[in-house]
Amino acid sequence: MTASLPVDAVLAEVDRSFPDSVARLCDLLRIPSVSTKPDHAPEVRRAAEWLRGELAGLGFEATVRDTEGHPMVVAHHPGPGAGAEVPHLLYYGHYDVQPPEPLELWDSPPFEPTIVDARHGPRVVARGAVDDKGQVMTFLEAFRAWHAVHGTLPVRVSVLLEGEEETGSPSLVPFLKANAAELKADVCIITDTNSWDIETPAITTRLRGLLYVEVTLHGPSHDLHSGLFGGAVLNPINALTRILGRIHDDAGRVRFPGFYDGVEEPAAEELAMWRDLGFDEAAFLAGVGLTAPAGEAGRSLPERLWSRPTCDINGIIGGYTGEGAKTVIAAQATAKFSCRLVPGQDPDRVLAGIRTFLEEHTPPDGRWEIRTFGKSPAFRVPPDSPHLRAALAGLGDVFAKPAVLLGSGGSIPVAGYVRDELGYDTILVGFGLDDDRIHSPNEKFELKCLHNGIRAHAAMLARFAAPAAG
Amino acid sequence: MTASLPVDAVLAEVDRSFPDSVARLCDLLRIPSVSTKPDHAPEVRRAAEWLRGELAGLGFEATVRDTEGHPMVVAHHPGPGAGAEVPHLLYYGHYDVQPPEPLELWDSPPFEPTIVDARHGPRVVARGAVDDKGQVMTFLEAFRAWHAVHGTLPVRVSVLLEGEEETGSPSLVPFLKANAAELKADVCIITDTNSWDIETPAITTRLRGLLYVEVTLHGPSHDLHSGLFGGAVLNPINALTRILGRIHDDAGRVRFPGFYDGVEEPAAEELAMWRDLGFDEAAFLAGVGLTAPAGEAGRSLPERLWSRPTCDINGIIGGYTGEGAKTVIAAQATAKFSCRLVPGQDPDRVLAGIRTFLEEHTPPDGRWEIRTFGKSPAFRVPPDSPHLRAALAGLGDVFAKPAVLLGSGGSIPVAGYVRDELGYDTILVGFGLDDDRIHSPNEKFELKCLHNGIRAHAAMLARFAAPAAG
Repeated sequence: MTASLPVDAVLAEVDRSFPDSVARLCDLLRIPSVSTKPDHAPEVRRAAEWLRGELAGLGFEATVRDTEGHPMVVAHHPGPGAGAEVPHLLYYGHYDVQPPEPLELWDSPPFEPTIVDARHGPRVVARGAVDDKGQVMTFLEAFRAWHAVHGTLPVRVSVLLEGEEETGSPSLVPFLKANAAELKADVCIITDTNSWDIETPAITTRLRGLLYVEVTLHGPSHDLHSGLFGGAVLNPINALTRILGRIHDDAGRVRFPGFYDGVEEPAAEELAMWRDLGFDEAAFLAGVGLTAPAGEAGRSLPERLWSRPTCDINGIIGGYTGEGAKTVIAAQATAKFSCRLVPGQDPDRVLAGIRTFLEEHTPPDGRWEIRTFGKSPAFRVPPDSPHLRAALAGLGDVFAKPAVLLGSGGSIPVAGYVRDELGYDTILVGFGLDDDRIHSPNEKFELKCLHNGIRAHAAMLARFAAPAAG
Repeated sequence: MTASLPVDAVLAEVDRSFPDSVARLCDLLRIPSVSTKPDHAPEVRRAAEWLRGELAGLGFEATVRDTEGHPMVVAHHPGPGAGAEVPHLLYYGHYDVQPPEPLELWDSPPFEPTIVDARHGPRVVARGAVDDKGQVMTFLEAFRAWHAVHGTLPVRVSVLLEGEEETGSPSLVPFLKANAAELKADVCIITDTNSWDIETPAITTRLRGLLYVEVTLHGPSHDLHSGLFGGAVLNPINALTRILGRIHDDAGRVRFPGFYDGVEEPAAEELAMWRDLGFDEAAFLAGVGLTAPAGEAGRSLPERLWSRPTCDINGIIGGYTGEGAKTVIAAQATAKFSCRLVPGQDPDRVLAGIRTFLEEHTPPDGRWEIRTFGKSPAFRVPPDSPHLRAALAGLGDVFAKPAVLLGSGGSIPVAGYVRDELGYDTILVGFGLDDDRIHSPNEKFELKCLHNGIRAHAAMLARFAAPAAG
């Protein structure tokens, strides 16, 4: 890409108008769009209307669409013109935010965005600063710069912004199903993830899936006195700990039958890239008060977190749990546990393996009750995706350091929904940092990250328009 | 014993006044003296005051004595007179009760005693109906009948009623030590055990001891997201289930180091008596909804329950235990578990073995917090005790079937404390049934058992007064 290409003028416009971009982000941050609080519903809608207005001003056909819950913002831009052969991109983000509580831990009011100077220069502190209002503004301001310089965008663009991400996106799949034709595109761009560090952009190409179950082991017909019955009858807590305690073998591997069937090992180049990241295991562990890694022996932490399936018990309860002593044998005991899933694993087969494992270990007279609370496969962007290559090229245009490809141990369900309901891939590219305190008091977004994010989206738009130039 | 002896008129008085005895028991049951709940302390004291008043009305010098915890009721009756050479008996019982929870499983409110007709005739349903308020009333009403007919008691009697039995009796040993001279007697009578069946009285000559501990395993400094950290960090619930799940080997034996050191096998004649009982294992299990025995392989249920040590987890809690899913790795997990101990086991050595076991299995970065809520050795009455013979004779006076000598899986630590601190033996004679649901919802006491218990105590008083007539 040379200085004569149209993107250079756009990047110059991004730099010139950056103070206005910050001001607009602050306007959005002042709207307390807390989706989980019913009494904040009008504020959630006000944020949607604000975004609709901004998109309409940039040449989008923009609408606010009602759902059973909070509304969706949907907007379409035709790109350079009906005759042009350009890709069609769907940008996804969310405009709702987590509750700000506990308020007393904030240094400034959560919905009065405050610019504070810190080691990376100025940052904006507010609820939603990065998650996800600040990230949404990175692509919206990139659209604005293209629009200001060229009067149009270099590709067809649709935008889908939801107001329920922080409450589990209950309306999203129904909305995708009901509007699948309208939301058809070539690739989805989600900006809700982090850079590797402030100088190194990242694309997240792997997300683990999730299978969440609750199991209750029933034994005696009622609670018993542990003296009068102990040593002669089934104790469901004894039995449940014995069974759950056998989920992992001594090497940290999960023993559910067939659990590792189909699990794909990362490619050698993926492993090499993760090795080169310089992931600071000691610092990662120290951040949560630990010194030693746990889990599967013989694997680096990035491997364990991004490419290996797990089983963690998330909750357990049974018998007497109050203060002091009660000499009881409980009639039942319950645990919730979840498996993080990786590419190649079928959640239904994993669930079948769990059932088999539990049945095989059922003590005499024991009876299981099993409930499922979530079941989604892992997500992975094919390394040879042309969209991934275009995005990497765009990042390369504006960052001095090359982008890295990461995994994430968590789940971003929308990527799976887009694949399943709309039938195309997703590129996860975001500009947050690990210390941005999302969901916590004093959430912040570095203005340098905001600026780089806008520049990166502006450059990626050019690269998506002409992937061959990448 | 012939019809002319003074006990016959007393038994007639017991029968005549039985409806009043039931009414008085119900008065006591209406007081929710739950010792484990700090906010119920005034109710615990109210029960103590109620009993003090009853004893004072029967010619006792009766007092409520403060302790560090709940008060003791102490009462003394001189018996037939200073000149008479009669034995001195100490009756022990407890007036505190277990928490009634879970309330929704009760058919009637736990502190509104309700008379219900069932296969043995009427029964009273309430928390404490049998454990131990109903049992305490068996000897108290026997005293009342003697007092009504003869204006006195045939032996010297002291009474010690505590309000902390259900919380491990923390004040009892200090109180016995501090008042050893006042509480000196020839033998202690404890009424907190069961008959063999509704027609067959029993004296319990073996009690298991108890060691109750609460352990918390601490891991990360705070709760973590199971996606972002799962598979790479210590999960305290995973670890705790793994450790607790290893307490028993495949033969049902406890693996704490040194756990079986010193354990005495029952004598051949004891085993023979237990065999002759015709203990109906299937019925015992069916009563609690089970079909298969658990515990140590190769031992009869009476052996497992009366002569073998155990370890039962009484409660466990950690992480998210509400409705639905939360993808959390908890910072800690807690379990309460208890060992039933048998003659020959030293509770302190068992506790040391538990600490060793936990330490040996501590995961990296794991940290234990260990609390002890009760620690008492097992107890055994010498088969040649003259007091035991007198009690058997008294039971023979009022029951058609001869009494049997049993073990009990439960713990009544006071028997050991009396032996250790006061230096005399204890006779454990009680009138509960196995299906009384003590510590569980719908606890009950058959009125027939209450009646027989009062009659038996009235007759035993006569036999203790003249043991040679036995």
